[in-house]
Amino acid sequence: MKSELHNAETAPPLVSSSIQIIRYNESYYEEKNTQCIDDCFSLEDDHYITWINIESTKHFSELEKLATHFAFHPLLLDDITGLEQRPKLDDYGNHIYMITSMLDYNINSMRVDSEQLSLILGKNYVISIQENGKEGDVFNPIREKLRTSKGKIRRMGADYLLYSMMDIVVDNYFTIIEKIGERVEDIETSLITDPTPNTLRRLYGLKREMINLRKAVWPLREVVSKLERLDSELITDFTVLYIKDVYDHTVQVIETIESFRDILSGLLDIYLSSMSNKMNAVMKVLTIISTIFMPLSFIVGLYGMNFHHFPELDWYYGYYAVLGLCFSVAIGMLVFFRKRKWI
Amino acid sequence: MKSELHNAETAPPLVSSSIQIIRYNESYYEEKNTQCIDDCFSLEDDHYITWINIESTKHFSELEKLATHFAFHPLLLDDITGLEQRPKLDDYGNHIYMITSMLDYNINSMRVDSEQLSLILGKNYVISIQENGKEGDVFNPIREKLRTSKGKIRRMGADYLLYSMMDIVVDNYFTIIEKIGERVEDIETSLITDPTPNTLRRLYGLKREMINLRKAVWPLREVVSKLERLDSELITDFTVLYIKDVYDHTVQVIETIESFRDILSGLLDIYLSSMSNKMNAVMKVLTIISTIFMPLSFIVGLYGMNFHHFPELDWYYGYYAVLGLCFSVAIGMLVFFRKRKWI
Amino acid sequence: MKSELHNAETAPPLVSSSIQIIRYNESYYEEKNTQCIDDCFSLEDDHYITWINIESTKHFSELEKLATHFAFHPLLLDDITGLEQRPKLDDYGNHIYMITSMLDYNINSMRVDSEQLSLILGKNYVISIQENGKEGDVFNPIREKLRTSKGKIRRMGADYLLYSMMDIVVDNYFTIIEKIGERVEDIETSLITDPTPNTLRRLYGLKREMINLRKAVWPLREVVSKLERLDSELITDFTVLYIKDVYDHTVQVIETIESFRDILSGLLDIYLSSMSNKMNAVMKVLTIISTIFMPLSFIVGLYGMNFHHFPELDWYYGYYAVLGLCFSVAIGMLVFFRKRKWI
Amino acid sequence: MKSELHNAETAPPLVSSSIQIIRYNESYYEEKNTQCIDDCFSLEDDHYITWINIESTKHFSELEKLATHFAFHPLLLDDITGLEQRPKLDDYGNHIYMITSMLDYNINSMRVDSEQLSLILGKNYVISIQENGKEGDVFNPIREKLRTSKGKIRRMGADYLLYSMMDIVVDNYFTIIEKIGERVEDIETSLITDPTPNTLRRLYGLKREMINLRKAVWPLREVVSKLERLDSELITDFTVLYIKDVYDHTVQVIETIESFRDILSGLLDIYLSSMSNKMNAVMKVLTIISTIFMPLSFIVGLYGMNFHHFPELDWYYGYYAVLGLCFSVAIGMLVFFRKRKWI
Amino acid sequence: MKSELHNAETAPPLVSSSIQIIRYNESYYEEKNTQCIDDCFSLEDDHYITWINIESTKHFSELEKLATHFAFHPLLLDDITGLEQRPKLDDYGNHIYMITSMLDYNINSMRVDSEQLSLILGKNYVISIQENGKEGDVFNPIREKLRTSKGKIRRMGADYLLYSMMDIVVDNYFTIIEKIGERVEDIETSLITDPTPNTLRRLYGLKREMINLRKAVWPLREVVSKLERLDSELITDFTVLYIKDVYDHTVQVIETIESFRDILSGLLDIYLSSMSNKMNAVMKVLTIISTIFMPLSFIVGLYGMNFHHFPELDWYYGYYAVLGLCFSVAIGMLVFFRKRKWI
Repeated sequence: MKSELHNAETAPPLVSSSIQIIRYNESYYEEKNTQCIDDCFSLEDDHYITWINIESTKHFSELEKLATHFAFHPLLLDDITGLEQRPKLDDYGNHIYMITSMLDYNINSMRVDSEQLSLILGKNYVISIQENGKEGDVFNPIREKLRTSKGKIRRMGADYLLYSMMDIVVDNYFTIIEKIGERVEDIETSLITDPTPNTLRRLYGLKREMINLRKAVWPLREVVSKLERLDSELITDFTVLYIKDVYDHTVQVIETIESFRDILSGLLDIYLSSMSNKMNAVMKVLTIISTIFMPLSFIVGLYGMNFHHFPELDWYYGYYAVLGLCFSVAIGMLVFFRKRKWI
Repeated sequence: MKSELHNAETAPPLVSSSIQIIRYNESYYEEKNTQCIDDCFSLEDDHYITWINIESTKHFSELEKLATHFAFHPLLLDDITGLEQRPKLDDYGNHIYMITSMLDYNINSMRVDSEQLSLILGKNYVISIQENGKEGDVFNPIREKLRTSKGKIRRMGADYLLYSMMDIVVDNYFTIIEKIGERVEDIETSLITDPTPNTLRRLYGLKREMINLRKAVWPLREVVSKLERLDSELITDFTVLYIKDVYDHTVQVIETIESFRDILSGLLDIYLSSMSNKMNAVMKVLTIISTIFMPLSFIVGLYGMNFHHFPELDWYYGYYAVLGLCFSVAIGMLVFFRKRKWI
Repeated sequence: MKSELHNAETAPPLVSSSIQIIRYNESYYEEKNTQCIDDCFSLEDDHYITWINIESTKHFSELEKLATHFAFHPLLLDDITGLEQRPKLDDYGNHIYMITSMLDYNINSMRVDSEQLSLILGKNYVISIQENGKEGDVFNPIREKLRTSKGKIRRMGADYLLYSMMDIVVDNYFTIIEKIGERVEDIETSLITDPTPNTLRRLYGLKREMINLRKAVWPLREVVSKLERLDSELITDFTVLYIKDVYDHTVQVIETIESFRDILSGLLDIYLSSMSNKMNAVMKVLTIISTIFMPLSFIVGLYGMNFHHFPELDWYYGYYAVLGLCFSVAIGMLVFFRKRKWI
Repeated sequence: MKSELHNAETAPPLVSSSIQIIRYNESYYEEKNTQCIDDCFSLEDDHYITWINIESTKHFSELEKLATHFAFHPLLLDDITGLEQRPKLDDYGNHIYMITSMLDYNINSMRVDSEQLSLILGKNYVISIQENGKEGDVFNPIREKLRTSKGKIRRMGADYLLYSMMDIVVDNYFTIIEKIGERVEDIETSLITDPTPNTLRRLYGLKREMINLRKAVWPLREVVSKLERLDSELITDFTVLYIKDVYDHTVQVIETIESFRDILSGLLDIYLSSMSNKMNAVMKVLTIISTIFMPLSFIVGLYGMNFHHFPELDWYYGYYAVLGLCFSVAIGMLVFFRKRKWI
Repeated sequence: MKSELHNAETAPPLVSSSIQIIRYNESYYEEKNTQCIDDCFSLEDDHYITWINIESTKHFSELEKLATHFAFHPLLLDDITGLEQRPKLDDYGNHIYMITSMLDYNINSMRVDSEQLSLILGKNYVISIQENGKEGDVFNPIREKLRTSKGKIRRMGADYLLYSMMDIVVDNYFTIIEKIGERVEDIETSLITDPTPNTLRRLYGLKREMINLRKAVWPLREVVSKLERLDSELITDFTVLYIKDVYDHTVQVIETIESFRDILSGLLDIYLSSMSNKMNAVMKVLTIISTIFMPLSFIVGLYGMNFHHFPELDWYYGYYAVLGLCFSVAIGMLVFFRKRKWI
């Protein structure tokens, strides 16, 4: 253990800034980036709220120190570092542990990426552990509010900080939902103007993403609902109302996803039907051409026969009569098709 | 705060009449339009019921004053002004807050528009905030009843006023349902007489609207059910029976929507099948024509060959024989098709 | 109010017999048709069970008098006269109010018609209000039993009378289910022997009726279940067992409807598939004809060419050779198709 | 009543042996067939378990005597004799009444037949009433165990006897499930090797039977679950464990049926797709033939024209050139199709 | 019984090593393979945890001895030896009995095989009975941890040992899920590049396996959930948290299976649609060829007629004019198709 600590202290500088500690109360604000988690051990104090943000689950030894310091259950550490966990909430009495999914819409690949976010709420602290923190941190708006003392966040407890983070996570879902909504509209338009097999592939891609999205959001709903109904001293009645609001938003996200699924299945019907319409159109052209020229070919074939006794061949206007007959048959056919509304 | 108040007092006249205050009891009735919400602060009184109707969520400063005056939770204000909220009900003890959706069927675009309606029920007051009030206000029947003292509304409390508003909202749903029902009948008729790709598009449009409608009505059901089971002093047992009635109507709306969905999916089957019938008809024509003329073309081609030794060509009635043969083959084919019930 | 009463007393004779009052106990039976509801006001008596049957909801003033007399909640009257109500049950303490649907299978239009039936159970009375009573009243078997004192109905209370009526309503559902079952069999047979677009239309019609039927029966189940679990003094434990029986029957009706829906969707698959089989058959004929005659036409076309140097044309048996070749090609093709199991 | 008794005593011998009474305890066993139910009235005794098995619901007067003797509720008798009852369980305090379905797989018609079995459990007795008992009675294994004193059945109470009967009924379901499983495999095989419209009809037949089976088994699950949770003195804790086991088996049957349904719907997709593959194959043949011979026919037609100035016709090798051209075109087309992977 | 014991003692050596007994506490570890279960009877001791692993359900007499020794309920023995049991959990007070399914993905047959695993948790012991133990035992990691005293398993009770085994079982599911995920990707790729009827068959095979998998995992979820909520002295609160973790994993497996099912149904749509695209392509080729050559054939047929008076035939450039006409018609058709985006 000792050696591990030592290693951590001499950790390469590239991860040095990935642990960030913010300490505040109504009148005080302090923010520092640290190389080593030990710095935070002295931070606990009833007069301040402490927010420890760890930007990677790879800081295993640091996480272990945290776990030892705060006396976390061994399972909790497993859950933080284990990837692709299902969102869940565990109440350990003096702290609450939550896993949520942060979603990100990748514009290039048109895919929804998912990143795990672990949140631990204690009496005076919140610990947030991102799977793989990025430059443009989604929590910046919260930091900004804390720094500038905007809103009521500085006056409130750690539970309100937790709520703020969950609120941002769920708000992010709405952004993704909106972008997906735009793509649905796109596909809808291209289906009506010019459906191609490629449209179907995009439809299928969207459907698959919807399945992933749904898989991520459904358990989150459970988590938020559990948090709302949790009878814990760590969460004040005042904050519960805000969590309820987050819950309502989660349900709204889910309902929108469900209605997208319904819309996509409707679009598939449109696609299949327009494909069969195209086929129908091709068939009609074929049938019209065949139906017009087959009798004509028969007629000219008839007068191409070599019978010695063939009176019509001797008629002076026979050729013109055949031309006229062919013309009449063709016109008749066209009239027939017009009546059937084929042309 | 002070300056905001001042701004509000000198607000542009175009929104001046959009706040309406009605105060009544069994023997008294007063109605006024006001520019500024301050007017209502003196209105609270146990002997009267006060109804404040605000026709736009854009009166932010006015809403803020209201919130301060009635000591509303900060979230409530967020919910009122935040758009596209999911219908919900929050019980804050001394007042109940509800979001519902008012639907409107746009005849031109054949779309269902949705507008958010916030309702706050307090001891002696109801506050209704429309997202974007219109001339032909849906609440006019209630105002009329209040003015003319028709029905029992003047004798009842604020909860009955709330019920009356919800009743009108849900009754409106029935109107929309009815209009959609007519369109379903229309599509049904045009599917049986003459299905076109356009019919499918209308079918899809209707399906999509049904998805939206469903998304709006399902949560309302929850809200009304919650209101019915709410153990609040603000709602008398007498009114609960009426709310139960509203609940039954909501369920009826939902069931009708569900059965429309079933009907639409049945219509899609009809459409697809009639499309495939059309294709079948085209194929039959093609096949009949080909099957009749291909053998005939072969026969006349046969006698168009230039063999020097070709006895049939010398026959005197050869040509007539070929004509007869062609005729027989054609008749035979037609009989065959008749037997197969193709023609 | 007074004048209304007067009007009722001088009501036109055509509705005069539509209110029927039956009073009975184990040893006593009295039955009378009346013009006016006032006659029944003196009928209440602990020693008798009174059954008031009103055959039309148009007797508004009579219903109002009833409501006043029995002190019904104003909503109850609204529910009775309001049409297309969803089946429901309201317990008002000293009386229970139920709406159910009486279904009737119209043989001519092959449609299921629905009529609203309101039932009110009080201490010694049952009031039944039909939407639009008909000659062949469904309650005749009950009247017969009462008159002839058959069964235990005369010995039992008003709750048993209520049960008897519900039992008849639900039994009627079975009759309808049976008739629909016959139609399902019909369609099944005609699908296997000769499917036509008309079969599909009948299938769709049946599906639509099933949707209506389901919409009528599902809420009834809830109503009966609620009645069974109701903790009311108006219903004895002995009768609860009978109501449970009615509940079981309702569930059986629902399950049968659900299985019909499954069967119908299976039939649709059969229909679509047999349509595509027909198409396949048409295609095969076309392909067989084309595949046989196209090569033949090429062969005879070949020998119709006018080349000066064309040795085969001079062969004495050239023509016969060509005939033989054509014959061989045709036979070869047929063998090929036989192998592919096309013919 | 007296006369009915008399009639029963002189009942025709053909039904004489259809009532069977078994009386046993750990050290005693007696079995007798009787003509008349009166024989059993003296059989009640705390020291013995009595099992009365009635093989037909047509012994109405006997059943009535039983009902009178054991003081059964009148509904119970109705339920026994009424056919096509839904499986259910009623607890009458001193006896428990159950309806279950006994299923039988008819090998000839490939249908599942259903027969109603009523079971009544009292303190020292079990009464079993079959709808229409058959020679090869399904309860023979139980009788055998009782006679030979095998297993623990002789040492246990009437509740264990009831369990044994239910166990046999549910075990029978597994046999049927297995047979249906074999048919599913059959259809699967024939779909892959040679799908015909007949396969579809078998698929549909199986689907329909699955619907019936499901309708029979779902309510049974409820019944067994109710029996398990029943807080009755008639069922010992020891036996409850066995009933739980029966419940698990019922659930297993249901899950197997559900997965069969899923498999069948997958098979339908396979069928439809293989039908469309067949169509595709036909289309390809048609297209290949047409695409090869149409250009050829045009070429030979070209040289069949009668223009006076037609230089190619005078070429000495013109005919051979045309033959070569035709050959090249045909080869070219075949190469084209090979590239498209059509042949 | 005596003789049975004797038989067991002289059991053939081939099964001699299939019973394995491990006894451990924090400071002690002992492991032995035994021929006969009697050896374990003396092993019970409050100071040790005993794990008895039986690798085959065929050791019937040994299992019987175990059952007698530990006073198991007779049903428990039936369940262990009865095959194809549904996963379940029975709490017998002083011991808990569980059936779970161990799944194994067979790489050759690409099938998921299922093996029953029975687990019995007592105060100081766990008994595990495999249906058909294999060489590469899945429990080896646990044995390794016990031997090397790695992790906390040696310090914990029997309930933690049970958890470890369930954890391994569920972890195994993830491996299978992953392999199936790879196959889904495979099929997806081959559907986009080159869909064949074989792809459909693989799709169907996967769907069928998913049905089986689901049937195995759903009841396991129930079992784990029951274990978690079980109020038993045999399971410490500390271990409950671990079991909750297993539960979360089970739910994750189920959700992944459900999303695979959705993906597969999406793939089926892709397949059917690409099949219909292929058909469309074939149809287009046919139509293009026919539409070009039919008019050409008519033209050359026209000038093949034998009319005596046929002025065009005498034109010097007539033949070239016809060639030009044919060329123009063909070009015109191609332009037409290009406009329709067919080529």
